[in-house]
Amino acid sequence: MNPRFELAHLAHAELLTPNMEGTLWFFTELLGMREVARQGDSVYLRCYEDPYHHSLKVTAADAPGLANLGWRTTSADALERRADALDRAGLGRGWTKGDLGVGRTFAFESPDGHPMELVWDVEKYLAPPELRSPILTRRSKRPLQGLPPRRLDHVNLMASDVTVQKEMFEQTLGFGTRERVVDVAGGGTEIGAWMSVNILGHEMAIMADSTGSRGRLHHLAFWYGVPQHNTDAAELCREYGVQIEAGPDIHGITQGAFLYVFEPGGNRIELFGNSGILELEPDFETVTWDLADFDTGIAIGGATLPAETYFVYGTPPVAGQESLITASEIGTRVAATVA
Amino acid sequence: MNPRFELAHLAHAELLTPNMEGTLWFFTELLGMREVARQGDSVYLRCYEDPYHHSLKVTAADAPGLANLGWRTTSADALERRADALDRAGLGRGWTKGDLGVGRTFAFESPDGHPMELVWDVEKYLAPPELRSPILTRRSKRPLQGLPPRRLDHVNLMASDVTVQKEMFEQTLGFGTRERVVDVAGGGTEIGAWMSVNILGHEMAIMADSTGSRGRLHHLAFWYGVPQHNTDAAELCREYGVQIEAGPDIHGITQGAFLYVFEPGGNRIELFGNSGILELEPDFETVTWDLADFDTGIAIGGATLPAETYFVYGTPPVAGQESLITASEIGTRVAATVA
Amino acid sequence: MNPRFELAHLAHAELLTPNMEGTLWFFTELLGMREVARQGDSVYLRCYEDPYHHSLKVTAADAPGLANLGWRTTSADALERRADALDRAGLGRGWTKGDLGVGRTFAFESPDGHPMELVWDVEKYLAPPELRSPILTRRSKRPLQGLPPRRLDHVNLMASDVTVQKEMFEQTLGFGTRERVVDVAGGGTEIGAWMSVNILGHEMAIMADSTGSRGRLHHLAFWYGVPQHNTDAAELCREYGVQIEAGPDIHGITQGAFLYVFEPGGNRIELFGNSGILELEPDFETVTWDLADFDTGIAIGGATLPAETYFVYGTPPVAGQESLITASEIGTRVAATVA
Amino acid sequence: MNPRFELAHLAHAELLTPNMEGTLWFFTELLGMREVARQGDSVYLRCYEDPYHHSLKVTAADAPGLANLGWRTTSADALERRADALDRAGLGRGWTKGDLGVGRTFAFESPDGHPMELVWDVEKYLAPPELRSPILTRRSKRPLQGLPPRRLDHVNLMASDVTVQKEMFEQTLGFGTRERVVDVAGGGTEIGAWMSVNILGHEMAIMADSTGSRGRLHHLAFWYGVPQHNTDAAELCREYGVQIEAGPDIHGITQGAFLYVFEPGGNRIELFGNSGILELEPDFETVTWDLADFDTGIAIGGATLPAETYFVYGTPPVAGQESLITASEIGTRVAATVA
Repeated sequence: MNPRFELAHLAHAELLTPNMEGTLWFFTELLGMREVARQGDSVYLRCYEDPYHHSLKVTAADAPGLANLGWRTTSADALERRADALDRAGLGRGWTKGDLGVGRTFAFESPDGHPMELVWDVEKYLAPPELRSPILTRRSKRPLQGLPPRRLDHVNLMASDVTVQKEMFEQTLGFGTRERVVDVAGGGTEIGAWMSVNILGHEMAIMADSTGSRGRLHHLAFWYGVPQHNTDAAELCREYGVQIEAGPDIHGITQGAFLYVFEPGGNRIELFGNSGILELEPDFETVTWDLADFDTGIAIGGATLPAETYFVYGTPPVAGQESLITASEIGTRVAATVA
Repeated sequence: MNPRFELAHLAHAELLTPNMEGTLWFFTELLGMREVARQGDSVYLRCYEDPYHHSLKVTAADAPGLANLGWRTTSADALERRADALDRAGLGRGWTKGDLGVGRTFAFESPDGHPMELVWDVEKYLAPPELRSPILTRRSKRPLQGLPPRRLDHVNLMASDVTVQKEMFEQTLGFGTRERVVDVAGGGTEIGAWMSVNILGHEMAIMADSTGSRGRLHHLAFWYGVPQHNTDAAELCREYGVQIEAGPDIHGITQGAFLYVFEPGGNRIELFGNSGILELEPDFETVTWDLADFDTGIAIGGATLPAETYFVYGTPPVAGQESLITASEIGTRVAATVA
Repeated sequence: MNPRFELAHLAHAELLTPNMEGTLWFFTELLGMREVARQGDSVYLRCYEDPYHHSLKVTAADAPGLANLGWRTTSADALERRADALDRAGLGRGWTKGDLGVGRTFAFESPDGHPMELVWDVEKYLAPPELRSPILTRRSKRPLQGLPPRRLDHVNLMASDVTVQKEMFEQTLGFGTRERVVDVAGGGTEIGAWMSVNILGHEMAIMADSTGSRGRLHHLAFWYGVPQHNTDAAELCREYGVQIEAGPDIHGITQGAFLYVFEPGGNRIELFGNSGILELEPDFETVTWDLADFDTGIAIGGATLPAETYFVYGTPPVAGQESLITASEIGTRVAATVA
Repeated sequence: MNPRFELAHLAHAELLTPNMEGTLWFFTELLGMREVARQGDSVYLRCYEDPYHHSLKVTAADAPGLANLGWRTTSADALERRADALDRAGLGRGWTKGDLGVGRTFAFESPDGHPMELVWDVEKYLAPPELRSPILTRRSKRPLQGLPPRRLDHVNLMASDVTVQKEMFEQTLGFGTRERVVDVAGGGTEIGAWMSVNILGHEMAIMADSTGSRGRLHHLAFWYGVPQHNTDAAELCREYGVQIEAGPDIHGITQGAFLYVFEPGGNRIELFGNSGILELEPDFETVTWDLADFDTGIAIGGATLPAETYFVYGTPPVAGQESLITASEIGTRVAATVA
C-alpha cells in the first residue's frame, strides 16, 4: 500500500546527556519546559502546546546523543502496516511495551542506525485545573518561567549516506522530500534532504556526516512560531552562558527561522521562530539546491554557519569534538549560580 | 471510501466587486499582489508564494460576494471519487472546462448555496526570469509594492444552518472540524465551525448568518505568517482610507492573528499574521466553545468584534447593510489621489 | 532662568495597593521585576535596565493610587533652581531625607495635588556578580521569570484642569508639550496633553478627570520597546487572570504601542511596546488633535478604549468604580494557585 | 559656555555615488524614500517621518563617500556660539548660504577631515494634502513603495585617531560619549566611540581606520524602530541583489538592531531596527569595552562582522577595496530589469 498518508507527525524524542543538571537547567529554567515525570535516570518534559504526555525525555549517559525518536501513525492500522514494511526492509527491531504516556510501539532503526519507533497509543495530556488555559486548543498555560517554546518541531539527523536514508523514509514510511542539496560539481552526491509527512516544510532533515560516523544527531528543534522569540532566546543564551552557534536568521532552505545553540549536555538544539514554508501542493516537486550556489540556502540574511562546528559536529561527538562546545561547563556554572 | 485524505487545500477564489478600480487598487497597490491576466470582466491576481497561476480572480458585478471557491484534491482519482460523492449528495453541478490556469473542474454547491469546485489539473506558476527568487521554494520574488501577503489562506462562510453545512464537508469531502462554538444556553445550536483538510487550524470556517440569508461570504483571508505585518497592514489601511473592522489581535479560536478590513468593493478581507494552531494529532478531538463563555475565543488581547458588522455583515450585503461600509467610496477616492 | 534643560527624566514612582500579595505577584511573577528591598509596608522593585536602586516602590494602603513620583534633574544646581521655582509657584513642600537608594529630595505637589519630588542624588544600581550582564549598558541580566519590561517609562495623570496642570510643568519645570487634545466644538477646552523633558514622545500625560476628582493616577507605564512583547504580555494576562482593558494596539497620539491592564491592586498599568515618536526637533510645534476627529489618535488599528473605564476610572477610584475592576480578586486567586 | 545642550540632532547628510541610477533605485524603489527635489547633479530624498525638507542628498561623483553632514543646534544663539568655538578650534570653514530647504549654515571639518555643518534655519516639511497622514506627528504617509525607513538615524565615521576626533566633539560641540572600545592589551588605544547629543545611544560613532586613511565614511543609518523590518529588509536585499554584509542581529554596543548592506554606489548603509539603549541618566558614565573581550559588543546573537570588509572598508574606498563590493553592478542590473 502507498505509505503516503500513514505517518502523522513526530511525537517524542529522547536525548542523552552527560550533564543532567545543566541540561535540565537549560530545558526547564531557560526554556521553561515543564517536568511531568521522573523515572530511573530519565526526566520527562513537555512544551505547553505539546499534545501528549511528554515530547522530550532526557536520560543520563556518558555522552550526548539521540536515544529514540517516536513517530505517530495516522491510525492503529497504519501502525501495523508500517511495522510490516519495516520488517520487510530489515529495519524492524520488534514491539515494545512503551514508556510513561506511551503505549505499545514498534522499534526500528534508520538505515544509518538512528533508533526510532512508531506509535499509535499515546496518552493525551490533560493539564491539572490550575494549568488549564482559556485558549482551548492549548494544552496548558504558557509558563511564566524562561522563554517557552510551544512544541517539539523537527529533528535533523546526520547520515553516512543521505540518499539511502532518504529513500527508505520515502518508500517505507511515506515521507515526502521537499528540498535537497546536491553537490553537482562533485558528481551529484546528495548532501542533504528535508522531508515531512504533512505540510510542514520538514519534520526530519538528513545531512551528510563528513566524519564518516553513523547514526548521529545534528539537532532537535522546538517551535516558537514567532520570529521575535528567536531574538529573545539569543539574548537569554548570551546572558546566561549558553553557546550560540548561529542565528537568529532564516534559512533559504525551508524558510525556517533558526537559532542554533548547544545545551549544556552538548546536544545542538534549534529554536524555530516561524512556521517555515508550508507545502500545501499535493504534487509538489522536490526543490534541488546546488552546493556550489548555496548562499541563500544557508541564510536569507547575513548569517554564516561555522564550518568548524555546523557541518561536522554531531552527537555523540567524535574524538576531539568535545572541545568545540563550551556550553557544557558554562551551563553547569550558570546552573550553580542562578538561584 | 473514507474521504479523509482526498482534498489537499484551498487553491483559488473568485470575488465579485461593484468597484473594480477600488478593489484592484486595494489588492495590487496596497497589498502588492501581482496581476497575471485579464479576461472579460475579470482580473487574475496572485500572491508571491501562491503555487499556481492565480489564487484570486476579481470580477466586476453589481454587488460584492463570492463567485467561486476552488479546492484541490490530493490526486486525479480523488477528484473522480469526490465528484461521485457530491453527485450522490445532490450537490454536484457538473464538470466545467476550467479557467485560465485551471483545467477541468467539478462544480458543486455547498448546502447553503456557496458556489465551489474541485480541481486536480492546475497550471503551476513559473515566474519570468526577473521575478524568480533565489529562495527556491518561493514561486516569485517578494514584491516591492505595498505590503504583500504570501498566499491565499482560508475562507469564512456564513450559513443559515452551520451543522448541515459542517456535516456535508466532513462526510462528503473529508474535512476535520477543529473547533466549534455552541450556544449551550440556547439549546445547543452550533454557531460556528472551523475546519480543515490538513494540519492548518482552519481552511474554512462556517458562521451562522443571523440575517437568515443563504450562501454569503464572511471573509477571505490572505497569509503573512509574521505578526508584525498585521500591524503594518493596519497602519497602511489607516493612512490610506481603508476601513478597519477589528484587529490586529489574536483569536482564541484557531489562535489566528487577525486583521479585518473591508476592501473598497465591500468584501471583508482578513490578513493573517501567524500560522495559528497547527493540529498535528491525527485523532484530535473537536474543541467546543460555549457561546456564553466566549471572550477568549474572540480575542486573546483586548480587541472586540463590532456587533453591528462582524456578526451580521456579509457579502452580498442584505438590504441596509451597505451603509455600514465606508471603504467603498474612500477606496475610490484614494485610488484617484495616490499616484 | 529658562527651565528647558533642567529636568532629565522620570526616575521612580510609588504605587499604593490594597492587595500587596496580588500586586507583588503581578510585578514580580508575571512581569519579572526584581525585588531589591523591603522596609515597613513597602517593597522596592526594579526593571533590569533601570539605572538606579529601584524604579517602583509598592506600599500597602487602603486604596490604590500614586503616592509619589520622582523626577531627576540634569544637575545638582538645577535641583536648587527648580526647588526655588516651585516654592515661588506655591507648590513646594520642602526638602526630604530621601528613601532607600534616594538622597535628599525636594517634595512638591502638582496643581491638581499629585505628590512628586525632584532629586539629584541617587544610588546607581550595581548588580551582584551573578546578575551582571555581558551587555554592558544593561544594569542586570534580563530575568528568566515572567515577561520583564526593561525600565519605567512614563506616567499618565488625571487632572481636574488640564491646562493649569500643563502650564505649570511647562513654565516651572521646562516640560515641552508634544501633543494635546482639544474639544473644539466644546469651546476649546484641553482634554489631554502629552509632555516630556527630553526627546521621548511623552514622559508625562495629563488627561481630564471627568469625575471632578483631583490628583488621581490614570496609569504608570513600563517599557518593552519591542512590539511583540505587548502581544506576549496580553497572552499571559489572558491566561493568568489579569484584566485587560485595551490593546495591544498603537495610539496615533505619541505613536505608542499600548497594552492597558489592571494590576491586582487596582492600578492601571500600561506596557509600552515601542519607543513611540521621538521628537528630535528642538523647535517642534505642539500637535493639536480635535476631540471630534480623534479616531486615529486613539488607535491606528481597530482597538477601542472602553468608555466605562478608560475615560473615568483612575486611582484611587471614586465611589462605585471598584466594581469595574475584576483583576483584584482574580489576581489574588491566581497568586494562590500558581506556585 | 558648557556646550552640553547646544546641539539637537543629526538633520541631513550628503552621499556621493558613482552610480546614480543604482543608488536612486536603492533609496527610492527598495527603501521607498521619496524624492523631493533635483538640482544640478543632486537628488534630494526624505523618509516619511523626517521633519525637514530632506534628510539625504545624493550627488553624482567619481567615487562614493560622504560630502556633508548637517547638525541642527538647539537655538539660533547656540549656532553662533558653536561657530565661534569651532573657529577657535581651527576647524571652522565659514558661513554658507545653505541649500534647498536649508538656510545659512556654518561649515566645519572634523579633526579627521569629514565635511560637516551646523544649521538652525531649516524648512519644516509640509506634505501636500494627498500625502498628509492622519497620524499627526508623522510628516507624511508611510509610502506604499519598498520597505520605508522612518527617518535618518545616525552616522559612523572612520578616523585615523579616534581619541582626537572624540575629544573635539565632546569639548567643542557637547557630545556625550556613551560607549567606547579600548585595546587594553595594545596599550589602551581607543578603537571606537559612540556619542550623542541627546538620549539616543549614538548619533555618531567613530571607528579606527586601520588603512591609515582620513575622513572616510563607515556607514549612514536609517531608522525602522521595528525589529521585524530589518528581517524584511534583509529578505528584499537578498532577492533583489543588494549585497548584505552582516545582520540582522543586535550589537551589544548601543543595543542597536543592525543590518549592514552596500547600496549600489558602494556606500555602506545600516538599517536600524529598534531604538537601541536610550541613555536617560544625565550623569551616565561612559561604558568601556575591552577589544580582547568583545564578542557580545559585536553581536548578542550569533552574527559575525566580516573582517575583510567591516573593519577596513569605508568610502571612498582605498585602492583595491572596490572589488569587495559586488552590489554596484548587481544593483544596476536590478535597476534595469525590475520595472
